[in-house]
Amino acid sequence: MKHALIVLIAGALAMLATPATAQPPRWTLVIHGGAGTIERERITPEQDAAIRAALSAALAAGSAILESGGSSLDAVEAVVRALEDDPNFNAGRGAVFTYDGTIELDAAIMDGRTRAAGAVARLATTRHPVSAARAVMTDSPHVLLTGSAADGFAAERGLEQVDNSWFQTDMRRRQLEELRARQVSDAGASWYDVDLKYGTVGAVAVDSAGHVAAATSTGGLTGKRWGRIGDAPLIGAGTYADDRACAVSATGAGEYFIRVGVAHEICARVRLSGTPLQAAADAVLAEVRDLGGSGGVIVTGPGGEAVFSFTTPGMYRGRATSTGLTEVAIYGDEAQP
Amino acid sequence: MKHALIVLIAGALAMLATPATAQPPRWTLVIHGGAGTIERERITPEQDAAIRAALSAALAAGSAILESGGSSLDAVEAVVRALEDDPNFNAGRGAVFTYDGTIELDAAIMDGRTRAAGAVARLATTRHPVSAARAVMTDSPHVLLTGSAADGFAAERGLEQVDNSWFQTDMRRRQLEELRARQVSDAGASWYDVDLKYGTVGAVAVDSAGHVAAATSTGGLTGKRWGRIGDAPLIGAGTYADDRACAVSATGAGEYFIRVGVAHEICARVRLSGTPLQAAADAVLAEVRDLGGSGGVIVTGPGGEAVFSFTTPGMYRGRATSTGLTEVAIYGDEAQP
Repeated sequence: MKHALIVLIAGALAMLATPATAQPPRWTLVIHGGAGTIERERITPEQDAAIRAALSAALAAGSAILESGGSSLDAVEAVVRALEDDPNFNAGRGAVFTYDGTIELDAAIMDGRTRAAGAVARLATTRHPVSAARAVMTDSPHVLLTGSAADGFAAERGLEQVDNSWFQTDMRRRQLEELRARQVSDAGASWYDVDLKYGTVGAVAVDSAGHVAAATSTGGLTGKRWGRIGDAPLIGAGTYADDRACAVSATGAGEYFIRVGVAHEICARVRLSGTPLQAAADAVLAEVRDLGGSGGVIVTGPGGEAVFSFTTPGMYRGRATSTGLTEVAIYGDEAQP
Repeated sequence: MKHALIVLIAGALAMLATPATAQPPRWTLVIHGGAGTIERERITPEQDAAIRAALSAALAAGSAILESGGSSLDAVEAVVRALEDDPNFNAGRGAVFTYDGTIELDAAIMDGRTRAAGAVARLATTRHPVSAARAVMTDSPHVLLTGSAADGFAAERGLEQVDNSWFQTDMRRRQLEELRARQVSDAGASWYDVDLKYGTVGAVAVDSAGHVAAATSTGGLTGKRWGRIGDAPLIGAGTYADDRACAVSATGAGEYFIRVGVAHEICARVRLSGTPLQAAADAVLAEVRDLGGSGGVIVTGPGGEAVFSFTTPGMYRGRATSTGLTEVAIYGDEAQP
C-alpha cells in the first residue's frame, strides 16, 4: 500500500513511441517471470545472470516465431513452455510446493482473434501446463479442466507426462519447510505474506496479422491448501486477450487479481473508455493496491505497445519487437526497460 | 443465434420504474433457477406449479431477511440455500451427473461492499455449496477452493456433510443415460447441445444500506468430464458484485460466459460507460450470442432496478422489492415479469 505505483517511463520507451503517423512494429512480444520482493540484496550474481539468460532465451524463442510470420498464439505458448522448463521460475519445473508437499500446476491461454480460451488447474503430471491449456481450447468444448482428470485429458492428446517429482526442486522444498516452521494461523492473509517472489510466468504478443494472444502458467502459492486455485488460470483474472483491446498476463497476489478481474478490467478500460494501455494497466494495479494486493502485469495491443506495470519492488520481465528491440530486466529501478 | 434478444419490457416493469425524483425501493431481490429450453409443451402442470412454488418460497426467504434490515449477502445466501435443497433445480440436491456418474457442485458468492468473494468447485459432500463459498470468503485467505480438499475445509468450518448419493435424483440419472446413449464425439460442442435446461440457480440483491451482493450455485453440465469447471464459481464470469455498479448472477452455456467475462463485463459497462443495467445486460448477452452461446442473467444495482435478460426460450425467475412487488415466471412470453 505504501509503494508509489512504479510507472516505467524509461528511455527504452522512446524507442517504442509511435506517433500517430508512424507505423507500429510488425510484431511485439512481452514476457514476465513473476513479480515480488525482487531486490538486489536478495539475488546472487549467479541467480541474476541465470534469470536474465532464461528470459532472453524465452524471448528469442517467441521472437523467432513472430519474425517468421507465426501467430501470437504460437509465440506465447513457446515462451511459456521455455519458462516452465526452467527451474528459476514458479511454473512447471521449479514450481512451489503445496502444503501437502506436492506440486499443482495452473495455466491458461487465450486467442484475441476469437476470444477462444483454454485453462487447466491442479495438474500434477503434465510437463507443459500451457500446452494442456491450449489442448483444452482446441480439442474440448470446455474452457477450464482441473485435477488428475485434466492430466488424463492432456495425456490422451499426446502431451508429455512426467512424475510429480520431476517438477520438485530443493529450493522450493526449503521454502515450504520455512513456511511450515512459522506456524502462523490458517486464516490470516499474513500466512502467505512472505518472500514468495510470486514467480508466475506469462507472455503476451501481437503478430504481423494484428492478432493478440496471452498465456500464463504458475505453481501458485507456496503452502497453498484445500485445492486453492489462483488467478493465473482464470480467464479475465490473470489472463485475457481480445483483438478489440489488448492482451494481458498478470502475476501477483492472485486473490486480489480475481476480485478486481484484472486482465479483463484492463481490456474493458481500453475498449470502453479508450484509455491508453499503460494508463489502464497502472490504474487497475492501483485498484488492486487499494484492496491490499500487489503484483504486476504485461500488456500489448494491436498497436504494438509493449507495456509493463508493477507495484512490487521488481518483476522479471522482457520485451522484443520487429524493430530489433530486445531487452530484459529484473529490478524496479532498471532503466531498461 | 437466430433468437431475437428477448427484452422484457413488460407491464410489471412499470411498477418498478423510478423517475429521477422517485425514491428507489428500500431493497430489491432478483432470483433465477436456470435458463434454457423451457417451453410449455416440455413442462407438466405439476412441474410448473412445483417450480413456481419453489421460486416463491426462495423469494420469501430472502425477502424476509431484507425486510427486517438484513444484508444483501445474507439474503442471496438464503435464497440459494433454499434452491440448492429443492430437487427441481440443478444445484445441490437434484444437480446433474458428471460423465462418471457422480455429482460435483460449484458455487460462488460476492459482497459488493468490499468486493470480497468466495467460491468452491467440484464439491462432492457439502450440502450447501453456497455456504462453503461464503466460508472461503470469510475464513480463508483464498477466493477459490476445489475438490475433496474444499469439502474438507467446509467440514472443518462446521458445514453439513452428506453422502454424494443425497444429491442424486432419478430424473438427472436418466438425463445422463440419455446423453451417453447418443454417443456423440467427445470434442464437439454439440455433445452438450441438448435439452439440459441448464438450471444453475442464483440471486442478486441490494439491501437497505445500499450494498449489493450476488450468489450462484450449480451442478454444471450433464456428462461433464475431465474435472470441468464452468462459469458459475468463477468471479467475473458467472458471479460478480460491486457497489459502484451492480450485482450479477448468470446461467447458461458457461464456456461462452467465461470467454466474455459476462458478470464483470456488465458491471464494467455500467461503471465505465454509464450504461443502464438493462441495456448493459442485453448487450453483453448479445455478445455471448454472437460467439454462439445462450443463457440469461439477473442484475440489480444500488438504484434498486430488478433486471432479467435471457436469450433462451425461458428462464426460471422471480423478483421482490420493498414496495410489495413479488412475482415469479418461467416462460419467455410471460408478461409477469
